[in-house]
Amino acid sequence: MATATTAVMSLQVPSSSVRSSASSFLSPSNAPAVFFVPRLFPKNIGSFKISSGRCRGGIRCLLAPEKDSEYCTKVSRNANIAKLQAGYLFPEIGRRKVAHMQKYPDAQVISLGIGDTTEPIPEVITSAMATKAHSLSTIEGYSGYGAEQGDKKLRPAIASTYYDGLGIDEQDIFVSDGAKCDISRLQLLFGSNATIAVQDPSYPAYVDSGVIIGQTGGFQTDVEKYGGIEYMRCSPGNGFFPDLSRTSRTDIIYFCSPNNPTGSSASRNQLTQLVKFARENGSIIVYDSAYAMYISDDSPRTIFEIPGAKEVAIEVSSFSKYAGFTGVRLGWTVIPKELLYSNGFPVAKDFNRIVCTGFNGASNISQAGALACLSAEGLKAMSEVVGFYKENTQIIVNTFTSLGFKVYGGKNAPYVWVHFPGQNSWDVFAEILEKTHVVTTPGSGFGPGGEGFVRVSAFGHRENILEASRRFKQMYK
Amino acid sequence: MATATTAVMSLQVPSSSVRSSASSFLSPSNAPAVFFVPRLFPKNIGSFKISSGRCRGGIRCLLAPEKDSEYCTKVSRNANIAKLQAGYLFPEIGRRKVAHMQKYPDAQVISLGIGDTTEPIPEVITSAMATKAHSLSTIEGYSGYGAEQGDKKLRPAIASTYYDGLGIDEQDIFVSDGAKCDISRLQLLFGSNATIAVQDPSYPAYVDSGVIIGQTGGFQTDVEKYGGIEYMRCSPGNGFFPDLSRTSRTDIIYFCSPNNPTGSSASRNQLTQLVKFARENGSIIVYDSAYAMYISDDSPRTIFEIPGAKEVAIEVSSFSKYAGFTGVRLGWTVIPKELLYSNGFPVAKDFNRIVCTGFNGASNISQAGALACLSAEGLKAMSEVVGFYKENTQIIVNTFTSLGFKVYGGKNAPYVWVHFPGQNSWDVFAEILEKTHVVTTPGSGFGPGGEGFVRVSAFGHRENILEASRRFKQMYK
Repeated sequence: MATATTAVMSLQVPSSSVRSSASSFLSPSNAPAVFFVPRLFPKNIGSFKISSGRCRGGIRCLLAPEKDSEYCTKVSRNANIAKLQAGYLFPEIGRRKVAHMQKYPDAQVISLGIGDTTEPIPEVITSAMATKAHSLSTIEGYSGYGAEQGDKKLRPAIASTYYDGLGIDEQDIFVSDGAKCDISRLQLLFGSNATIAVQDPSYPAYVDSGVIIGQTGGFQTDVEKYGGIEYMRCSPGNGFFPDLSRTSRTDIIYFCSPNNPTGSSASRNQLTQLVKFARENGSIIVYDSAYAMYISDDSPRTIFEIPGAKEVAIEVSSFSKYAGFTGVRLGWTVIPKELLYSNGFPVAKDFNRIVCTGFNGASNISQAGALACLSAEGLKAMSEVVGFYKENTQIIVNTFTSLGFKVYGGKNAPYVWVHFPGQNSWDVFAEILEKTHVVTTPGSGFGPGGEGFVRVSAFGHRENILEASRRFKQMYK
Repeated sequence: MATATTAVMSLQVPSSSVRSSASSFLSPSNAPAVFFVPRLFPKNIGSFKISSGRCRGGIRCLLAPEKDSEYCTKVSRNANIAKLQAGYLFPEIGRRKVAHMQKYPDAQVISLGIGDTTEPIPEVITSAMATKAHSLSTIEGYSGYGAEQGDKKLRPAIASTYYDGLGIDEQDIFVSDGAKCDISRLQLLFGSNATIAVQDPSYPAYVDSGVIIGQTGGFQTDVEKYGGIEYMRCSPGNGFFPDLSRTSRTDIIYFCSPNNPTGSSASRNQLTQLVKFARENGSIIVYDSAYAMYISDDSPRTIFEIPGAKEVAIEVSSFSKYAGFTGVRLGWTVIPKELLYSNGFPVAKDFNRIVCTGFNGASNISQAGALACLSAEGLKAMSEVVGFYKENTQIIVNTFTSLGFKVYGGKNAPYVWVHFPGQNSWDVFAEILEKTHVVTTPGSGFGPGGEGFVRVSAFGHRENILEASRRFKQMYK
């Protein structure tokens, strides 16, 4: 087991926190944080420390972070979780930001790292949520448990707004507290025997939650990949669309378009190839369309625009990046009734069982907000929010282009993927932070295919985007 | 595999829905619902129907609910989910209610089945949520992603309100979207190799989510238990506290007090025995304290009142039954930093990784409501809500007692556990529904130890509780 044989290290991370208390949790003042050597991260981030002790229970504690005389249970640590390399990417970025702010307390740090929305939620939406909240203190307006699958008005509203004419109806829609949460529930659905493919680079929740459920082997440090996962390289050389002729069959294929982190969107022709590939292999595509409203060209907004997709695809999506719902929490998952397991059993029926057993529906207040998002006024307001971030994206694209960098993405997504050929992503991330006080995200945090790139998020107040651009121009002039 | 060998049946359930669209999902108008014979349910609920077909993909579909020519993927159905018997209990109760309402469209059906709150949320709490919602449309008030572990004011407020002086601090508190949701995340934490014990009867989420993650064997129809689970019988004969001298060691021990469904609460002496048992075995107690505010006597409100519990216990709780948050969604889980795996690794660090990877925190609006719950005014308002439901409980207890029934629970919990010795729970449930139009919950739905009992929930408007009592008196006079 990794815990017995791998050297551990104590990360020198400050205990205070700005955005996330993850940092303080992971390094409480009375207990140094203990991590396994995080191969995805640079190697100069801490000193080695191995502590051990004998438990009062008579079991030898290999790691005893607090005292040598701790009581240990006899419950084994979940070996799948032990496979994970360091912390989840974005809390790690948050920790780096906090450390930087402590080093430079007077610096005006600008965060273009975590893709976190910054602009207020349109009033038409917050008013609906406030009205719902007030109504809950009246006899007539009060409601308790909602349907686990979502509000009976919201499900058809999502179906008709985003899937009109595509054969998706309200029964296929499962309302959730966010796309990331549903990705985790999808792991419970498919279980530990499912095999998975991911775009490389990709949003880290697909891989990490697959590791947790036990779908993968251990981390292979030589290639910086987990065993058993099919990594589908997406690079400028293939237009960020994988070479399917060289892709092995898996049960599940995660595919995000417009893509996080590369910012590229797949064309209709490419998605047609993907659906054909899935149908030939009998695979299920888990299609992440959380950035679909950012599409400017004629790229499909949903996988269900592709004929034949209903029998091979699930789609996850969210209001987070449209309405600034990153904190409000509201997303959805589409599982068409036509999607069947090999024995003919509908996938949606098992997912329904998952949400009934382990979820009680999204907050009724958040769902009232979602319903307002889908009103005529709400849709217009969301499209203004999206338009604002798209202007930010253009500013960032222009900045790096003018400095001679090759940049990708940005047209159909709020992410700009900047190429630093031959350089280590974490080094570039650290250098940008050190010299400009701007937080980005190192490409290799999204998988080995992201090495040599940095992701710049367009989520920010306009003045911060402009100021960051000035600093980039100063740094790279 | 069960799908290949077990007869399936088509439930004759109407497709319209009152509370939950689960019913309409599970029985869409164009596709009859297909279930395996649900052994926990009575046998006269539908007609047998087996459909089969050949998939276009060349795979024989054993079940093809819609057409004979469906495309099937080559993805195997998760065998763990296939072990589950019928649907989750409470949606099933909801379906029975709907069916009854269709049979008697003029009846005034009273629902004392699902433990769903009915009284408005106190204004001090909804006002805080409305204010938070409005603030999200301002530059100053907007916030995006919150900390995955919970709001930095809410975590210490929970710690100081419910765990003052018990050595639990804010770092040990993980805010969630509800206790049931966290129980599912705890399954991801422990993984499929963990062994589990449950009180019998018990809240069905423990068993069902354990089945889904793969901790159990198949369902054994002769004993109506899943293989591999230690069922700890709780009956009037043992004061609803298990005989630990006859209980085998497991990794995890689920324990709910005040108990759902029996309504009994464990005494300090009993919980001291439980903690001693866990320490001797190196087990982890998952303690569900969601009804703690209903305690009238000196039973402990939290497992952490018991010395030594911090090294062997996790506690899950919720505002659902205190503030009427069943639809708002807000709970918490306590994982003390002292709780260690056998190798000395802190359990809380892995749970932190789970929430960072598969959860983005509870809704910021719900969290603002929770903070208001914990204000002086909010605590007073919650205790009035709890007091109201406790008066309901007393009415129900008095009713059944006056009719000569042996009743249990009710003193420290909003549930009354009525004994019908020698009778089948589902038969009693059906007879009560047929004769009084009152929905209850059959005891055997909570496990074989619940056979011969019916759970009556005290969540209801006062006039409905009184009317239900009148009808019970009429039926059993």
